Amino acid sequence: VITLLTDFGLSDPSVGEMKGAILGIEPDATLVDLTHGVEPGNVREAAWILSRAWRSFPEGTCHLVVVDPGVGTDRRGVAASAGGRLFVAPDNGVLMPTLEMLGGPIEIRELAHRELGVARRGTTFDGRDVFAPAAARLLRYGRLAELGPEVHDPVEMAPFVPRRAEGGWRTEIIRTDRFGNLVTTMEESFLRERGGDAWRDVAVRVGEKRLAGLRLGYGDVEPGALLLSIGGSGTLEISVNRGSARRTLNAAPGDPVFVEIPEDV
Amino acid sequence: VITLLTDFGLSDPSVGEMKGAILGIEPDATLVDLTHGVEPGNVREAAWILSRAWRSFPEGTCHLVVVDPGVGTDRRGVAASAGGRLFVAPDNGVLMPTLEMLGGPIEIRELAHRELGVARRGTTFDGRDVFAPAAARLLRYGRLAELGPEVHDPVEMAPFVPRRAEGGWRTEIIRTDRFGNLVTTMEESFLRERGGDAWRDVAVRVGEKRLAGLRLGYGDVEPGALLLSIGGSGTLEISVNRGSARRTLNAAPGDPVFVEIPEDV
Amino acid sequence: VITLLTDFGLSDPSVGEMKGAILGIEPDATLVDLTHGVEPGNVREAAWILSRAWRSFPEGTCHLVVVDPGVGTDRRGVAASAGGRLFVAPDNGVLMPTLEMLGGPIEIRELAHRELGVARRGTTFDGRDVFAPAAARLLRYGRLAELGPEVHDPVEMAPFVPRRAEGGWRTEIIRTDRFGNLVTTMEESFLRERGGDAWRDVAVRVGEKRLAGLRLGYGDVEPGALLLSIGGSGTLEISVNRGSARRTLNAAPGDPVFVEIPEDV
Repeated sequence: VITLLTDFGLSDPSVGEMKGAILGIEPDATLVDLTHGVEPGNVREAAWILSRAWRSFPEGTCHLVVVDPGVGTDRRGVAASAGGRLFVAPDNGVLMPTLEMLGGPIEIRELAHRELGVARRGTTFDGRDVFAPAAARLLRYGRLAELGPEVHDPVEMAPFVPRRAEGGWRTEIIRTDRFGNLVTTMEESFLRERGGDAWRDVAVRVGEKRLAGLRLGYGDVEPGALLLSIGGSGTLEISVNRGSARRTLNAAPGDPVFVEIPEDV
Repeated sequence: VITLLTDFGLSDPSVGEMKGAILGIEPDATLVDLTHGVEPGNVREAAWILSRAWRSFPEGTCHLVVVDPGVGTDRRGVAASAGGRLFVAPDNGVLMPTLEMLGGPIEIRELAHRELGVARRGTTFDGRDVFAPAAARLLRYGRLAELGPEVHDPVEMAPFVPRRAEGGWRTEIIRTDRFGNLVTTMEESFLRERGGDAWRDVAVRVGEKRLAGLRLGYGDVEPGALLLSIGGSGTLEISVNRGSARRTLNAAPGDPVFVEIPEDV
Repeated sequence: VITLLTDFGLSDPSVGEMKGAILGIEPDATLVDLTHGVEPGNVREAAWILSRAWRSFPEGTCHLVVVDPGVGTDRRGVAASAGGRLFVAPDNGVLMPTLEMLGGPIEIRELAHRELGVARRGTTFDGRDVFAPAAARLLRYGRLAELGPEVHDPVEMAPFVPRRAEGGWRTEIIRTDRFGNLVTTMEESFLRERGGDAWRDVAVRVGEKRLAGLRLGYGDVEPGALLLSIGGSGTLEISVNRGSARRTLNAAPGDPVFVEIPEDV
């Protein structure tokens, strides 16, 4: 299995061409789109999506990520292995939170293009010409070392953990989904550990708006009403039943969310 | 083959995670997206799409549907078999018109989570955690009975058949497609049987607008003109050549369409 | 491998139904979406996408294209082979530039429906009922001749080569991508051959706007600034760093672009 995660969208043939490049090297690959709807150039959103999604895939899967506002610059590409999984991406930190979750990278290698038989030209589409072939070769031959020299100083990324703030915790809106739900990075387990039996009585402030109490589903409030819930990714979400929390609260990715957990000391 | 039909869209990784969950159980599954663009929560639209699309797939296919405004409530999931095909979906009626077309369900089972090894948590993403694994196990092992107890009272759904009204027939706009075509549930065969040789001279009223005469293709009228045709799904459609009937007529899914068939007695 | 290129979008089940029709005939097919976001009915855009994308796929691939404003008329379908690749499409010229690049078609056959066991009805969805089965049979049995009689007069399409104009060259905006980049058909190699060492100092006029000098990537100019680059498809593109050239220049597919190449004689 190779998963693909990009900000290319689906109106261009870019993703299709990447798949062709993969199938030309590894015809037996099963290709799964994670999403190609990452906000253009939003590396942190992509990092977060990957850090959730890898859990749904079997060991041995190769996760290919191409989200990079540095496209066309001399940004290097990297391949990594950790916890029985393989990764290929630009060296912009997008893999780091996931690699940490998996116990840290066992090995990170630079995609040294010459060794891949890929001539670097004045192209802005490394996805097809560098990253896709690297992922295909990795899945087929499994030899990280052949891709290039070891990388000891990969670009880092801050982890997705809440920080102490204002007598509670500060988390962030990491993305909004199709329905306008505001997805934060605060995990259910984080709330449970600190809140004990009262963990569902969490209170949240985003912008000027305050909300309290987790719901089990959208159906637990009236249509049009705001609610807190644990979303499909297992983190705190702010939603509107049959509406858009993004629009209702005029909130956006990167906005801070302040959380008070009862019993938390 | 497992087909996926949801209202999740493609900007989230939800669909990708469902596929990962499937491939972890049944690595040889061929996954086909029917569409993930169902109007959010529109169970009737999803039921109609399925009732058309299953015909295009070979016997043995498992059709997985996750469209449910009741997500997060205690709505049960079901698996069913009929006419050599398998189905997994919420118990909200979405399968029923298709099962009827296939001669009625041979067997319907509840997805009893414990037997699937799936712990139900405070999640709103049953698609990945319950429905996808159930579909994968069903395709791999083919044993409906292992999924849970038999269901004798599935939620029903009204069939997509026209009703007598105003000296003619009443059908409904079931969905609008990407081009703004208004798709009804009235089948070509229904018109042929009643209209005989004159079946193409059908007259239609939607809102205040009256239209008459089926065209073979959009090219048969001027750009911008309304027309009636039999769409790709084999039912009556209202279209605008190189335009949007939805916008031209200000019509929406659920709106009634009144049809007069010549010679009809 | 069968690739699919259409203007159907992904909100309808049309593409899924085509895949079902293919898998019913050739269950081992690997299906890759090139894109289903071609501007509705834009045959020239589809022809251009195909003429780029086939290079990314291995020999033996079958490329299926369904983009046709003549849907529902008596437009015939064709299958062709060239350069070790197979093609199925309407006979509207969409294959011709690609076939020429591959050294010209070795053989073109009409999709004579009766021989495919497909009854032509009053349908507007030939994609599922004619083209998909033809592609599947072609991949499975590889016998072009069984599809129908030879075609000696396929509909032609003008090639994507620049023409002399105003002391330079005239090319065209063939499409805009998701980011609003204006993609032209002028190849990097065309510029290199004529411009020599100074090829990157190319000057471009689109509408009233003049631009000069190729950049290596978007990061080479300020956010909001226009730039010229060689895009992922290997042709001249007009972009705005973190913005939309389409909106900035109010330009659209089909618009002419005038190019002056230094040293060009």
